[in-house]
Amino acid sequence: MARSVAAHRQAVQELLSGLADTKGTEELPLMGALGRVLAADVLAPLSLPPFANSQMDGFAVRSADLAPHAGSDAGAELTVVDPVPAGAAPVRLIPGTAAPIMTGAMMPEGADAVVPIEQALPDVFPVPGVPATVRLPTTEPGTFVRDAGSDITAGTVALRAGTALGPGQLGLLAALGMTAVEVRTPVRVLLVTTGDEVVEPGTSLPAGKIYDSNGTLLEAAMLQSGLHVTRTGISGDDPAELLALLRGRSGTVDLIVSTGGVSKGAYEVVRQAMMGHAVEFVSVAMQPGGPQGIGMFDGVPFLGFPGNPVSCLVSFEMFLRPALAAVVGIPALRPSLQARLTESLTSPAGKHQVRRGTLLPGGTVRLEGGAGSHLIHALANSNALVQVPAAVTELDAGAEVEVWML
Amino acid sequence: MARSVAAHRQAVQELLSGLADTKGTEELPLMGALGRVLAADVLAPLSLPPFANSQMDGFAVRSADLAPHAGSDAGAELTVVDPVPAGAAPVRLIPGTAAPIMTGAMMPEGADAVVPIEQALPDVFPVPGVPATVRLPTTEPGTFVRDAGSDITAGTVALRAGTALGPGQLGLLAALGMTAVEVRTPVRVLLVTTGDEVVEPGTSLPAGKIYDSNGTLLEAAMLQSGLHVTRTGISGDDPAELLALLRGRSGTVDLIVSTGGVSKGAYEVVRQAMMGHAVEFVSVAMQPGGPQGIGMFDGVPFLGFPGNPVSCLVSFEMFLRPALAAVVGIPALRPSLQARLTESLTSPAGKHQVRRGTLLPGGTVRLEGGAGSHLIHALANSNALVQVPAAVTELDAGAEVEVWML
Repeated sequence: MARSVAAHRQAVQELLSGLADTKGTEELPLMGALGRVLAADVLAPLSLPPFANSQMDGFAVRSADLAPHAGSDAGAELTVVDPVPAGAAPVRLIPGTAAPIMTGAMMPEGADAVVPIEQALPDVFPVPGVPATVRLPTTEPGTFVRDAGSDITAGTVALRAGTALGPGQLGLLAALGMTAVEVRTPVRVLLVTTGDEVVEPGTSLPAGKIYDSNGTLLEAAMLQSGLHVTRTGISGDDPAELLALLRGRSGTVDLIVSTGGVSKGAYEVVRQAMMGHAVEFVSVAMQPGGPQGIGMFDGVPFLGFPGNPVSCLVSFEMFLRPALAAVVGIPALRPSLQARLTESLTSPAGKHQVRRGTLLPGGTVRLEGGAGSHLIHALANSNALVQVPAAVTELDAGAEVEVWML
Repeated sequence: MARSVAAHRQAVQELLSGLADTKGTEELPLMGALGRVLAADVLAPLSLPPFANSQMDGFAVRSADLAPHAGSDAGAELTVVDPVPAGAAPVRLIPGTAAPIMTGAMMPEGADAVVPIEQALPDVFPVPGVPATVRLPTTEPGTFVRDAGSDITAGTVALRAGTALGPGQLGLLAALGMTAVEVRTPVRVLLVTTGDEVVEPGTSLPAGKIYDSNGTLLEAAMLQSGLHVTRTGISGDDPAELLALLRGRSGTVDLIVSTGGVSKGAYEVVRQAMMGHAVEFVSVAMQPGGPQGIGMFDGVPFLGFPGNPVSCLVSFEMFLRPALAAVVGIPALRPSLQARLTESLTSPAGKHQVRRGTLLPGGTVRLEGGAGSHLIHALANSNALVQVPAAVTELDAGAEVEVWML
């Protein structure tokens, strides 16, 4: 009856599937585009390397000058000409000569190989301007030459639309001479915490109340994921209050996320407020984070996360992160790896359990706190989510588990 | 003769060891502190949960009322009293009664257990105000009660100085009622690209020149790592020019990083400029990124990275990131996992090779480009660094390797 984790993840991805197409674009300077997503394919305006260059400090040569001849030793004695200055266009290499060349310097016309200085006799560069010769061994054409375009050819696709821009991608755009790039505008989320028991941090705490941590937790997770976040403030358990907070804002956001009020108790404000809207409330076979709302509110995708902070983060990581990664290209999926439990655990039959843990050196993982979804201090001491599949009810210390690095 | 990767990493860590102590602190609102590092221990100003509360939707009871008696069935019929409103301080529970209670609501004084609604007869909540009784089974004290302080106790350390503040940590601070937090000011880096062959992106590209990608690549990597970055612009190969760019700025930064000019060619501007300063130039048994400068310039830690973009990024990831993680708490270490090569590779004897790759579903890793340190397009298509230990010279397809997720 309960929906599997995979099925709900797929449902969230389908809910968000239109986001990539409807988002606008903007042009940003490279550094402002860090963590953003490319709006269109970038074609390389030039080849990389732009010109053939040396891979070593050594001598640029015509390999034919060093080819073995009948009756001669391998290699040859060549006349040393002026060194190739870094960053300059060198003169053509005359047959029978060798030009000192540094790593990255442009190969002279006519030269087709580089002999590293360590293979030269003598194995030091002569003083420029003083006549000198050097004995070099036979060398294949192309040796220690980085051909023009060997990394990328002008006119081909350098980066595809949808690529997330990190240091390597921005470095490539700079290498191509670009200073700005067209990126998608961020997905805008409206975030609302619900519950009569929830008050804003920084205010006094009456008996029976708790401070809102879900708002901070999810806003931070969403910011790190490249989303633009607006918070409505806290809604109490009156559906009219929640609807008043959401109405009128749906036109300015791409997604609404609520916390709390989605389970089967007597006062479930999100369930009540969403009656008459195309939002369904499902039970996902997951602990924590089982009760989930999903659908459309006033034409905007809507997700209702449960009310406990750990459930909120687990919902974000298990459903919203992978869906966004698939649909808009950021955030990245969490790295997943195998680790061995330092202690045993139990898990409810038929539910995928997500425990919090700390990955330790040596490939073991220690659980932080119990299964309780209210344990935010334990969450704050964790760096990993421990995945216990639905079919598993107990694991011994030493058992291998999949962990997602936070 | 060449220094091991581990030895150089340790040297970089020692060079930076004073950074944590000398950095100032600043108070920031929680969301402004995302990705920053806590300057001092935070003691919990209250316990979490702040009060005992229900873990389930059900009935709050005195467990003694449900204890088995001689001659009676287990459990008892209790009078249902007013429900506990979420977020309110409930009245004391009278013996012989049961109070409907929702998940997270405060336990009434006198109540010591919760019976889930599913175990009640009838298993629905009565309409408030209408007299009703409910049959509940025998229940151990403490059942489905989250005790006050079971996550953290008031007055104990919630987060240690040096903790990196992500969503979970900021969520905890919010749960503790805090709105601002004292963090360390970011480490300030002065970044300089060197080389007569290097020109700024956005300008024209004369023959023999290349665009500076190192500056963008490293600035982006450093920004993502929580560093504050100032770029000097490009220095040509004249040591006086480089010194002029660095002089006068050393008082305003915590670290200087240069690129290029550190190997053994004829024109090594960083080597030449650092003569007379306590900077040594070493060869690390690593490919790429072997030539490294390390020391002090005008009282400021100095690192000289090699000039090729891939070497720069590998130097940052292999040395500076782990050193900063150890000394100032950010950035996080890269997640490391094991994967199987999709193809064979060779690696120079005695050198730790770092290849770029893409981790594929199913735990395999595909190499992107060859070993060449100029292949920034290949780097931009990668999401992982493949670690080939110094003792390994070849690996077959299918061999297990350590990969670091970028």
